[in-house]
Amino acid sequence: MSVLLVSKKRDFSALKKHIQTIDSNIDVEIWPAVANPDRVQLAVAWNQPENVFAKFPNLKAITSLGAGVDHLVRDATIPESKNLTRMVLPSLKQQVADYVLMSVLNILRHSHTYYRQKQRAEWSEHQPIEKDDLRIGVMGLGQLGLVTAKKLEQNGFHVSGWARTKKELSSIRTYTSGEIDIFLREVNILVCLLPLTPETTGILNLKTIKQLKQPAFIINAARGEHLVDEDLIYALDTDRIRHATLDVFTDEPLPESHPFWNRDKITITPHIAALTNEKEAAELIVENYKRLLSGMKLLNPVSRKFKY
Amino acid sequence: MSVLLVSKKRDFSALKKHIQTIDSNIDVEIWPAVANPDRVQLAVAWNQPENVFAKFPNLKAITSLGAGVDHLVRDATIPESKNLTRMVLPSLKQQVADYVLMSVLNILRHSHTYYRQKQRAEWSEHQPIEKDDLRIGVMGLGQLGLVTAKKLEQNGFHVSGWARTKKELSSIRTYTSGEIDIFLREVNILVCLLPLTPETTGILNLKTIKQLKQPAFIINAARGEHLVDEDLIYALDTDRIRHATLDVFTDEPLPESHPFWNRDKITITPHIAALTNEKEAAELIVENYKRLLSGMKLLNPVSRKFKY
Repeated sequence: MSVLLVSKKRDFSALKKHIQTIDSNIDVEIWPAVANPDRVQLAVAWNQPENVFAKFPNLKAITSLGAGVDHLVRDATIPESKNLTRMVLPSLKQQVADYVLMSVLNILRHSHTYYRQKQRAEWSEHQPIEKDDLRIGVMGLGQLGLVTAKKLEQNGFHVSGWARTKKELSSIRTYTSGEIDIFLREVNILVCLLPLTPETTGILNLKTIKQLKQPAFIINAARGEHLVDEDLIYALDTDRIRHATLDVFTDEPLPESHPFWNRDKITITPHIAALTNEKEAAELIVENYKRLLSGMKLLNPVSRKFKY
Repeated sequence: MSVLLVSKKRDFSALKKHIQTIDSNIDVEIWPAVANPDRVQLAVAWNQPENVFAKFPNLKAITSLGAGVDHLVRDATIPESKNLTRMVLPSLKQQVADYVLMSVLNILRHSHTYYRQKQRAEWSEHQPIEKDDLRIGVMGLGQLGLVTAKKLEQNGFHVSGWARTKKELSSIRTYTSGEIDIFLREVNILVCLLPLTPETTGILNLKTIKQLKQPAFIINAARGEHLVDEDLIYALDTDRIRHATLDVFTDEPLPESHPFWNRDKITITPHIAALTNEKEAAELIVENYKRLLSGMKLLNPVSRKFKY
């Protein structure tokens, strides 16, 4: 019995060490140099190569090394019989919530403008946007969205949330799928924390943007495919969006030639809103591995129907 | 009876309007075009010209249009008999606390590095600094420092505070004047929110900096005179300080030739950590004006002894 770590580019030596620190008896194989393919029961995957799992006849479950599972769900070579799970680590939720809070504060206080002014030694002040003059809309109220919405609310922001299913939250207004227009029309800062599914692909488009309250802003910390890139640029150029903060992109690393790099009104971070803490990840992998071997229910299962 | 608004450069037309919206009977004069100097009883001052108050024989009290009163305290032409007050508006406290929280998050997440990388279309990620791996030290636990320390603590940071007098706070370690060395040695991010007095002038110097825990950072949102500029540059160049976030400067606007502008490791904002909300300020001015005319105690009095 063994655990397989598989990714096209990730270095898994530290994660393997963390797993074996928890239990030195666990056999950990790192793709592609797998000694015993027959013994692999659990695979931990991030940006896995196509059709990689076919080589492991006794594989029972695949875990995404992150909160997103789109790389697994869209891999048609994975049989339905494999259990899929994902990793929603406590530190990941806090990181995302802090990233969004930081991005919102930077928007309110014009940090990007002051960065540019500094480079030309320019001293001029800009009135901050008042918290009471805007509303933040969090798309996706799953594990990440919920913690983020609550953190924003605790820091004095007006918050609305939008999710597939109805959520009851005390001081956060919540809307379901069909109510998206009402949601968008009351929101200034749109924060995307949705899972990537066929329904949510391209959801950040011009039609969506045009409904936002002015001044309008976008923060995308979910997946690059949620955003229609040319629609964002068009919206920035026509002043429908004042500023966009993007952590994720359809192509990563974002190609040097991509027009996003040259836009002053876009803040770019290299997919760092949440970085998996490998020690915490190892604990969850070991827990699910024990559950798998014992025939128990796995933690953080992924719904094939809803694709997250 | 009248209220005088006096400043070398500030435009007071909006503040006058806000005061008269509250009570249209209040006579408001704006320096230097004062029709009836004899009638002035209360002055509201910000960067006032030297010896300006001598021209108002019936002036009883002077209010600073901000939390700081150093511009009043160091003006030797103001007789001891005048009452001094300051303005600690609720919105001011929240603004300062948010500014510090934003600056701390930007430090942890390397925002300034990502801004620079963006300009050269560079995609490379940097491991965030973990909250549990550092401690924030707030210098000054007055009205601004206290709200800031609590906000940081509520957002999951380890916080220590340092103040002239002993403060008892549940989850925040506090130290008094004589314990500054112990305080500094446990702190990574030093946040200055002190009043400017002879004792605190130049307190952010090389000796202070050298005691900080590594990695060390400075945030100054109090007064430029708290910082010894050449000591900061020396500390940045010798890697004793990783990054400094400065909102205040000895000369404001910061002169174009100042070396701070050219340092990548310094974030500069143009004294915007807290901007006075003029509507709120008008309310406090009217309240203190009524108290003055009624012979009652004024709100937010300034101690001549402690100079804040």
